Amino acid sequence: MRVSLLYSGGKDSSLAAWMLHRLGYRVELVTASFGYADFTGYARESARAIGFEHRVMNLGTELLRRACERIARDGFPRRGLEMLHLAALEALAEKGGAIADGTRRDDRVPLPSLDEIRSIEERYGVAYIAPLRGFGKRSIEDLTSRIFRVEHAPSEASRSADYEMEVRAYLRDKGYDVNKIFPPHVQSRVTGLR
Amino acid sequence: MRVSLLYSGGKDSSLAAWMLHRLGYRVELVTASFGYADFTGYARESARAIGFEHRVMNLGTELLRRACERIARDGFPRRGLEMLHLAALEALAEKGGAIADGTRRDDRVPLPSLDEIRSIEERYGVAYIAPLRGFGKRSIEDLTSRIFRVEHAPSEASRSADYEMEVRAYLRDKGYDVNKIFPPHVQSRVTGLR
Repeated sequence: MRVSLLYSGGKDSSLAAWMLHRLGYRVELVTASFGYADFTGYARESARAIGFEHRVMNLGTELLRRACERIARDGFPRRGLEMLHLAALEALAEKGGAIADGTRRDDRVPLPSLDEIRSIEERYGVAYIAPLRGFGKRSIEDLTSRIFRVEHAPSEASRSADYEMEVRAYLRDKGYDVNKIFPPHVQSRVTGLR
Repeated sequence: MRVSLLYSGGKDSSLAAWMLHRLGYRVELVTASFGYADFTGYARESARAIGFEHRVMNLGTELLRRACERIARDGFPRRGLEMLHLAALEALAEKGGAIADGTRRDDRVPLPSLDEIRSIEERYGVAYIAPLRGFGKRSIEDLTSRIFRVEHAPSEASRSADYEMEVRAYLRDKGYDVNKIFPPHVQSRVTGLR
């Protein structure tokens, strides 16, 4: 069983990769980029550090521009980031098989929604897996701290390959105050196995 | 990490047990009974066949009576079975630690709901895990068919220890036509590892 997993190098997508591997899947990690500012090297390093195959998928600057316009209009990032995540899942799904991401049960708004999941599965004939959906915050922290070495940094100084990094770069270049749009938070990045 | 998992001997709770074991948990399987008609031997056999510790937890006939009254009043089983499942999770939660069940993403109404999960976690200080929640029907079937030998039977002749079995026995004895209340369906029972 092969599965392609959207991968940022952070704790959640790394744990999803580790879980799928333990359950017998052959896991390929895929990092989405938009060809504007390249943060994918961080994800590649993390993937290598935990022993997985990795590739980059370029979704194009036009998609990034549309998502950033929505974010600038909204004044908050959620819907624009969701647009990028859905587009990334659909791009993964085009190759068929099984696709996965690191979505958690306790994400403020777990996305994709069940309706969006079923729509992707039906339109593309794929199986979508979100191995972390059945686990709460505490269980995920227990597992992560046993399995990985992790570095944390404020998001403005993060070395992860989360969509947020390229969105921040784009909006900053367009003159927006990104620290007003993104609430301050800490990004994690996996640096190896324990 | 220890976890107590509600276990019927069916495919879903068996797959949940196997997954948690693969992820490094020490899994104890727990079958709920209500002291009315004992089907727990089937679950014990399945647990032994796949190599897990197993115990029976008696929740009392009074709970069964209340659930059966609701089911008879409703004319359909969903809310009564949900009452039994929540009571079983709460009884498991009383010992603290981590608790789990075989709830799936694609169950018609995945229960417990997120609100019920969070309520149990907060009131009892436990972590609830539903390892199958992140997997769709197709992925679960792929995994199950690789891992287990399974026997199927119509629910009226099933040899599983699902709550439905004791509910059926109770309602039948009270003179209800259980085949009107329960839509015809097939129950699975795991008989071993492949």
